[in-house]
Amino acid sequence: MSGIAAVDVIRAKRDGYTLTDEQIDWVVDAYTKGVVADEQMSALAMAILLRGMTPAEIARWTAAMIASGERLDLSAVSRPTADKHSTGGVGDKITLPLTPLVAACGVAVPQLSGRGLGHTGGTLDKLESIPGWRARLGNDEFIRQLDEIGAVICAAGDGLAPADRKLYALRDVTGTVEAIPLIASSIMSKKIAEGTGALVLDVKVGSGAFMKDLASAQELARTMVRLGKDSGVTTVALLTDMSTPLGLAVGNANEVAESVEVLAGGGPSDVVELTLALAREMLAAAGVDADPEKVLASGVAMDTWKAMIRAQGGDPDATLPVARHTEVLRAESDGVVTTMDAFGIGVAAWRLGAGRARKEDPVSFGAGVQLKVKPGDRVKAGDVLLELRTDEESRIPAARADAVGAIMIGTDAPASAGLLLDRIA
Amino acid sequence: MSGIAAVDVIRAKRDGYTLTDEQIDWVVDAYTKGVVADEQMSALAMAILLRGMTPAEIARWTAAMIASGERLDLSAVSRPTADKHSTGGVGDKITLPLTPLVAACGVAVPQLSGRGLGHTGGTLDKLESIPGWRARLGNDEFIRQLDEIGAVICAAGDGLAPADRKLYALRDVTGTVEAIPLIASSIMSKKIAEGTGALVLDVKVGSGAFMKDLASAQELARTMVRLGKDSGVTTVALLTDMSTPLGLAVGNANEVAESVEVLAGGGPSDVVELTLALAREMLAAAGVDADPEKVLASGVAMDTWKAMIRAQGGDPDATLPVARHTEVLRAESDGVVTTMDAFGIGVAAWRLGAGRARKEDPVSFGAGVQLKVKPGDRVKAGDVLLELRTDEESRIPAARADAVGAIMIGTDAPASAGLLLDRIA
Repeated sequence: MSGIAAVDVIRAKRDGYTLTDEQIDWVVDAYTKGVVADEQMSALAMAILLRGMTPAEIARWTAAMIASGERLDLSAVSRPTADKHSTGGVGDKITLPLTPLVAACGVAVPQLSGRGLGHTGGTLDKLESIPGWRARLGNDEFIRQLDEIGAVICAAGDGLAPADRKLYALRDVTGTVEAIPLIASSIMSKKIAEGTGALVLDVKVGSGAFMKDLASAQELARTMVRLGKDSGVTTVALLTDMSTPLGLAVGNANEVAESVEVLAGGGPSDVVELTLALAREMLAAAGVDADPEKVLASGVAMDTWKAMIRAQGGDPDATLPVARHTEVLRAESDGVVTTMDAFGIGVAAWRLGAGRARKEDPVSFGAGVQLKVKPGDRVKAGDVLLELRTDEESRIPAARADAVGAIMIGTDAPASAGLLLDRIA
Repeated sequence: MSGIAAVDVIRAKRDGYTLTDEQIDWVVDAYTKGVVADEQMSALAMAILLRGMTPAEIARWTAAMIASGERLDLSAVSRPTADKHSTGGVGDKITLPLTPLVAACGVAVPQLSGRGLGHTGGTLDKLESIPGWRARLGNDEFIRQLDEIGAVICAAGDGLAPADRKLYALRDVTGTVEAIPLIASSIMSKKIAEGTGALVLDVKVGSGAFMKDLASAQELARTMVRLGKDSGVTTVALLTDMSTPLGLAVGNANEVAESVEVLAGGGPSDVVELTLALAREMLAAAGVDADPEKVLASGVAMDTWKAMIRAQGGDPDATLPVARHTEVLRAESDGVVTTMDAFGIGVAAWRLGAGRARKEDPVSFGAGVQLKVKPGDRVKAGDVLLELRTDEESRIPAARADAVGAIMIGTDAPASAGLLLDRIA
């Protein structure tokens, strides 16, 4: 115990001091083992949120979280590895087309993903709408599929960074999620422990993201890129817009369908643009010279997608779940769609059953919002703006109110900064 | 529940917003009932510590803590009532001579006291060194003794501000003790619930106190005086020095003995000075015109002391416990005592067994430190500076080291700002 008491660590951070390596190692380890109590760690998390941490403290904290569990060894995989992580948004299904596309270009993609909580969706929830598909793989299965197919999207095992899992659940109920040192170390501890050689971060900015402004997103991106590089992982971050949903589908099954459209050579232009931009970064970071646009057009990425889904028990050709009730929202006047707020649409989809309020809740695969227009589109009164889809009709009125509040129709086309806002390497 | 979630309250304070009355009422009530978890309240306490609270928030928080329990009704007591509260120091036995003295002047003193934790002693621990004396009284007993004798020192019942008891224990282990809004509301909720008509606060400043500097002590004093007045309690604060122990006795039985000396007309001059200053403030606040110096000299205060101790089962004439081992610390050189650090002496007494490390621990009544000199006194090499008293000889070396570190002998008499540093009304 080195004579370190939890209260001394809390008070040091509270009073603005830099924690020592010994204090960080001890408190993370002691919290994982239950020696430091939840009420002590939450007070420390709040002090970290309000006082900040130096880059050296964040690096040590991340290392301590990695050391709390196992670290995967991907050296048996014959291809270079590259992973992508998004900080979470509305309609963000990019992992689905991106993983098989990058694999089809010759890079192995070890995607350990999570589930949705709140208004942002989760990759595993989306894929589970495919009949038969299973999220849980053993470490051996994971490495074998990565080596053979080059693409795996599955649940992170319990062995990776258990300190992070415990701390993340605590932060969620104690108002301490939005601390950049804790967000950065949470993401990077899992990605470094997963063993990827390269990592591309998609840091979302805007109403539908954790980071509402560009400056905080840049700080988070810089922190994570530094953590990755210091651990020997080639790391690049793209900062991308999350003020409006990505693509037209927000939900689970409808996002899978939209991803398959992209793999088939179609799909909404923003989803295609971001998928290709992230693929280029992953290939460059992994040192592989390939043109993802050509590979996408060739149909090889679609083959990889099907192989990846089948390897985990899913039927890529099965019919996807459809919600029992659909209601449309129509424009009340002529004009141009100026705003389609990501947060409002995300909350509407969540209310319809696409997301969960508590970790234990199931999601409804067919539920969600299907947009029919995007900002900049001209509409006439009576045109359909979007569809609300749900298995429980009683969920519609509240979701409808959120959707109505999320859309603004004006006279002039909105100014847009574009999808890609910044790149930090 | 009014739709208020704990996380929303935490985030509001974290982000620097003022909590609404509804939020404060809800969170204090829900925490008392266990609906808000310890890890949520500790995160909120840290946010309060770092973000502060407005006077209106502190007042509402205090009211919510009072509302969590019962409020005593002292209207059956025929005399005016006045109480004193010290924020805690080393050698601070003032409550013992002060309570019977003020009662002997015609004011009823309802002293609900606590136990020591850490390096500061507790009034109840000191009185329990008197054979037979008991700290617990029922509400009826308390009011009867207050009416008949005018003086009661006893444990606060479980019914008063239960929210505070739960929160205080939490703050102790989460590094959130030193928040002025929480210290002020903790003290004042109990004193207002106790039903006293007037209150004199002794806010300690210096190494042996919670507040190390005058500015923080003034802020705490102003906050508490405002809370008292707003609740209809005439409240005055004296700010007094706690850089050096009060009197010569630090412990339990030896502090009782020193208090009895004061009641007998003797005792160290600083203990007498502070007892009289606080007595004058209590009498003025209660609107009673009497001269406590004359009453002390008359011996009536000693009679009241004996009646008060007897009423609670104690024998005021019994021999007090004596520690089994005594060791003296001697001056190593000639000179003037320039420093006798209150914190160091307090820790030495605590190590000797006078205090407790955990709430459950017993205290040793005979253990403590007995000073033989005070700052400003001239000493020669070999003179006794203090006695270390303990029941367990093995405790002496560490206590001796603390005591040695607390004392400095120099060539010039120390400058002193005096005992009374400020008065806030």
